[in-house]
Amino acid sequence: MKGVILSGMQPTGQLHLGNYEGALKNWVRLQDEYEMYLCIVDWHSLTSDYNDTTGLKERVKQMAIDYLAAGLDPNKCAIFTQSEVKEHAELHLLFSMITPVSWLERVPSYKEKTVELGLDSYGFLGYPLLQAADILVYKADTVPVGKDQLPHIEFTREVARRFNNIYGKVLPEPEALLTSSPVVPGIDGRKMSKSYNNDIRIADSEEVTAAKLKKMFTDPQKLRKGDPGRPEICPVYDLHRIYNPAHEEIVAPCKSGELGCVSCKKNLTEYLNQALAPVRALRTEIEKDDSKIWNILKDGASRARVKASQTMADVRKAMRIDW
Amino acid sequence: MKGVILSGMQPTGQLHLGNYEGALKNWVRLQDEYEMYLCIVDWHSLTSDYNDTTGLKERVKQMAIDYLAAGLDPNKCAIFTQSEVKEHAELHLLFSMITPVSWLERVPSYKEKTVELGLDSYGFLGYPLLQAADILVYKADTVPVGKDQLPHIEFTREVARRFNNIYGKVLPEPEALLTSSPVVPGIDGRKMSKSYNNDIRIADSEEVTAAKLKKMFTDPQKLRKGDPGRPEICPVYDLHRIYNPAHEEIVAPCKSGELGCVSCKKNLTEYLNQALAPVRALRTEIEKDDSKIWNILKDGASRARVKASQTMADVRKAMRIDW
Repeated sequence: MKGVILSGMQPTGQLHLGNYEGALKNWVRLQDEYEMYLCIVDWHSLTSDYNDTTGLKERVKQMAIDYLAAGLDPNKCAIFTQSEVKEHAELHLLFSMITPVSWLERVPSYKEKTVELGLDSYGFLGYPLLQAADILVYKADTVPVGKDQLPHIEFTREVARRFNNIYGKVLPEPEALLTSSPVVPGIDGRKMSKSYNNDIRIADSEEVTAAKLKKMFTDPQKLRKGDPGRPEICPVYDLHRIYNPAHEEIVAPCKSGELGCVSCKKNLTEYLNQALAPVRALRTEIEKDDSKIWNILKDGASRARVKASQTMADVRKAMRIDW
Repeated sequence: MKGVILSGMQPTGQLHLGNYEGALKNWVRLQDEYEMYLCIVDWHSLTSDYNDTTGLKERVKQMAIDYLAAGLDPNKCAIFTQSEVKEHAELHLLFSMITPVSWLERVPSYKEKTVELGLDSYGFLGYPLLQAADILVYKADTVPVGKDQLPHIEFTREVARRFNNIYGKVLPEPEALLTSSPVVPGIDGRKMSKSYNNDIRIADSEEVTAAKLKKMFTDPQKLRKGDPGRPEICPVYDLHRIYNPAHEEIVAPCKSGELGCVSCKKNLTEYLNQALAPVRALRTEIEKDDSKIWNILKDGASRARVKASQTMADVRKAMRIDW
């Protein structure tokens, strides 16, 4: 029997290369091996952005387009929005009855963000519990995550264990699947992130990509062609590693100074645009038909509901609130 | 246009005269004047009793039987269980995003019970928010309550106000309807309550009722017939007030000592059993057909869902999470 994966992202809109290399490509690979549920977690986005939902619908759509453009196949995996599967809310509510407040207060991300961002809502406190419900409502046994998410998976396992102890074994204790992904720096050398405004997007045109790469940080000691460079600390070289199959060949000329940053970036631009060309072409295609995108999400939600409602039937039976 | 009422009770099973006089009779009167939703709040019961749900289904059924026996008409009001209307959970989750934890921490009943009963779950902290969702998911403008529930109604109004401020006016600010109800002492003279084990139930037979009244506390200074009694402090007299239309006529003979407690209780037993006879007869009838009872609850849930899903469509539209 196939394993079951749940993964998701908050609807941040158009995705960047960090998302593409770090998540989407892995998902595309995993969709053949697993029964996969990919959830755009719009409810979660309200934990921080309840106050501005103006662009939410557009952000959901743009993200769905990127999923599809990256090669996620709606016939292989269910792509949907969390808010269309009410079972997440039901399971979250039932979990809330068996979860001590102290468990939530000691989740590391809560402590940090409640101080840092001033988030103080009941929903923000319950974030990890909603995440546990997202995962367990599909009886997912596998959750592909980055290291920073490990405490949340451990929390989910604790909730599942507590539920099973009280009501009998119904829920799996999901395992984190630590997927390897390359370092993807943004154009300022920091981790690529929308909030740093240093990202290159799947949706960017070749020209926009070129313009962004032109401004990208390089080894600060290499001021002009002729200066020796250090590829090992250069963010542009990090991208070469990903997109330039012959990247090892530029190490020597960079180090010697023979290769200048301007032409090095031009090379990268060509490789990167070439690698993304099919994804971007597909993106342009998909983008043309709004209703098709929403239908894919609707259909994904229908399939997710089938699975989620089976789980909830088991949950209610175990809790003896089935009639 | 008719006003909309939401009211509810936790599924405690068979109801007693305190419930009958304090709630059911009022509801029966109100069902002609209002669009009424009567919710058996099974999810709420998990805030304290998540650990023992063995008898939950039976308790729900027994309560529904008492509702019907008391004269609540499923053609006039929707009688249903909370867990069958998922929209309560959805609205509760959405409210959680806009409600500061501090609002919940300062609800008086939370502070008391978290210390007194050791209830420390996330769901128990969120109890008033789920109650707000129970009420507002029907856009109820009226909530019949006792004085002890006033802080919860005020909390509901605050949540509605906050929602409307952020997303635009969608939700009413419901008013408490303080219904007058007589004092109903239990057989030990304290307030009638299941947890005190001092209650007389609608479902009790005439014999059980007689036996309970026989043991009921009276004026402690009146030890035997002949001693002067004080009706104004006698719990038996409190019940006479409710069930004996000629109760004023026993004041003098009680005070003079002419009327003894034994025969006074016998009188009361007759009046009480007589008053409850039609309710109990109906109860016996209803109890015979399990599937009919569950169908009434199913049907009530269907009608509740129609209303609740209309509200949720408005809520999602205002929040711009509708697609």
